[in-house]
Amino acid sequence: MKFCSACGNSVSNRIPHGDNRTRYICDSCDEIHYQNPRIITGCLPIHADKVLLCRRAIAPRKNYWTLPAGFMENGETSEQGAMRETAEEALANVTVQSLYTLFNLPHISQVYMFYRAVLTDLDFSPGLESTDVRLFSETEIPWKELAFPVIRNTLKHYFSDRKTGAYPIHIEDILIQR
Amino acid sequence: MKFCSACGNSVSNRIPHGDNRTRYICDSCDEIHYQNPRIITGCLPIHADKVLLCRRAIAPRKNYWTLPAGFMENGETSEQGAMRETAEEALANVTVQSLYTLFNLPHISQVYMFYRAVLTDLDFSPGLESTDVRLFSETEIPWKELAFPVIRNTLKHYFSDRKTGAYPIHIEDILIQR
Repeated sequence: MKFCSACGNSVSNRIPHGDNRTRYICDSCDEIHYQNPRIITGCLPIHADKVLLCRRAIAPRKNYWTLPAGFMENGETSEQGAMRETAEEALANVTVQSLYTLFNLPHISQVYMFYRAVLTDLDFSPGLESTDVRLFSETEIPWKELAFPVIRNTLKHYFSDRKTGAYPIHIEDILIQR
Repeated sequence: MKFCSACGNSVSNRIPHGDNRTRYICDSCDEIHYQNPRIITGCLPIHADKVLLCRRAIAPRKNYWTLPAGFMENGETSEQGAMRETAEEALANVTVQSLYTLFNLPHISQVYMFYRAVLTDLDFSPGLESTDVRLFSETEIPWKELAFPVIRNTLKHYFSDRKTGAYPIHIEDILIQR
């Protein structure tokens, strides 16, 4: 950030009065521009003994497999966002069951939320950000070609919990030194 | 938003290529300025049969009672943020137990997260954003002077769950028409 989005003048990175960390502050109109973590919301879409994964058409981790997920938008709930991303990336319709995993990734200031969901039909196909969408049984999961640790951990929890039939929310911090 | 924070030129509100909703886009450098929901994280601090509330020194809802909470910051986990806010607003130290309530407030693009926490000592007092900090038993809660619906709902859940000793996560959408 170099310029104030309110007045267009320069900003500098300094600690506002009464605050305890640096913010971008306008040198002209004094507007403080806060920057905060973003939420990525998505689904773990299930059909019978299989889960649906999307092959990423875009960076980062192009060609790796992921669960349908993306940035939560203003004006929606996290559950609505998860369904929207599933519709956009896998052109799939789901019935959401419950929030299943929540991950803090402080090194990139993100919070991930995945909902367990059941496919309402088998009418799915790649959206603009996917090159392939497929159902995988536990033994078919491409563990070495998964896009992100949050995908791996969500799938691991699911196949483990499925043995008991109980799906408590799993909350984890994924800590990576920078 | 009127100006591009990257180059200082004007922005306009239009739908980027390949997107499906309007964003602020720079008329000069084409930078897209996404705006996303923010997370408010906080604690439900407990001591024996009482909970700690803070009286707000600032707008909105000045003078109303609230749980210590505030905007999650970049570089921290939601639990770290909850402890930091409790330290800042109530000068209180807590041991966090678990995530307890999660609220979507799509009309203001916020997600609230409250953690159940136990006060590690009774050494608390008002921080800069509070005029008073007190412990309340269930019968002492100032129900009509609570700052926000998320505070009321979190307290209601707590006093109800306390009868059984089980504290599942409560996830709710607070929907207000605009």
